[in-house]
Amino acid sequence: MGIFNQAVSGLYLEKLKNIALFEAIKDNEVAMKRVIEVSSLRKFHKGDYIIKEGEMGDELFILLEGSVDILKKTMAGDDYVVTSLKAEYNIFIGELALIDDDKRSASVVAKENSETLVIGKENFLSLGDSDPHIGLSVTRVISKILAGRLRKTNEDMMTLFDALVTEVQD
Amino acid sequence: MGIFNQAVSGLYLEKLKNIALFEAIKDNEVAMKRVIEVSSLRKFHKGDYIIKEGEMGDELFILLEGSVDILKKTMAGDDYVVTSLKAEYNIFIGELALIDDDKRSASVVAKENSETLVIGKENFLSLGDSDPHIGLSVTRVISKILAGRLRKTNEDMMTLFDALVTEVQD
Repeated sequence: MGIFNQAVSGLYLEKLKNIALFEAIKDNEVAMKRVIEVSSLRKFHKGDYIIKEGEMGDELFILLEGSVDILKKTMAGDDYVVTSLKAEYNIFIGELALIDDDKRSASVVAKENSETLVIGKENFLSLGDSDPHIGLSVTRVISKILAGRLRKTNEDMMTLFDALVTEVQD
Repeated sequence: MGIFNQAVSGLYLEKLKNIALFEAIKDNEVAMKRVIEVSSLRKFHKGDYIIKEGEMGDELFILLEGSVDILKKTMAGDDYVVTSLKAEYNIFIGELALIDDDKRSASVVAKENSETLVIGKENFLSLGDSDPHIGLSVTRVISKILAGRLRKTNEDMMTLFDALVTEVQD
């Protein structure tokens, strides 16, 4: 069970059922336990960096307890807070790392003492190889997130492009 | 076997082994035949639109024979050729449609009489439900493509943003 004993596993099972990544397998207790088996628990103190912008990452974090700030750097190199997120929102962070090499696009800092469940890329791929229905259900969710983000980024780029053309023409 | 008979299936099996989508299952003949079963053959005449920019799509196309132009519209609404692709390049087009609703980001026009193998989203999802190792292996490839495209688009956006800031400051 990784670093989990049965009691801890039971505690987190209910929490994980609310995480969108596991929507298709949340009622399959065997599958959910397999996910917990390949996960590990990691605690952060207030102010700790969970993810650093610009670094390569190969881990997904599910926020079990606490809250985090999402920070991005300005062109001058200063951090600014994009948004703050709480464990109650059932959030996960860094899912791209389970698909491909991920150069982190933002920093994530613990806003208070926080607990996360960590899934590493290698463990996730092995889980998919041994239990493809689990791997597929989670990979489908991540793909949809990537597709949505790509659509949004393309729209933003068109807006930016139009703004640039307008500026150049002025 | 869908619209295929055994002989046709055998002909395309060799071609499909070279398509990157099937890299992880290309030596698994049972899996490859399952893919062919859920596919259909579609022929296009020179000048036909295979995909139209701006329309919603739920099909992936694998180019079996022939060649295509990839077209995008300028802001004035004129089509320009982004690139031309040949069947020999072992290409597939519109893979985002297997993941999510896809508003086509470019048009694809047959440059000569061409043959495609078409996989629809519903068929692809059903195949994944019944044979998750097939669904997972293909979804992993598509996810990596989306991740790479997202990274590229983000970089392009930073470049465009810098250009805009420079223009505004001038």
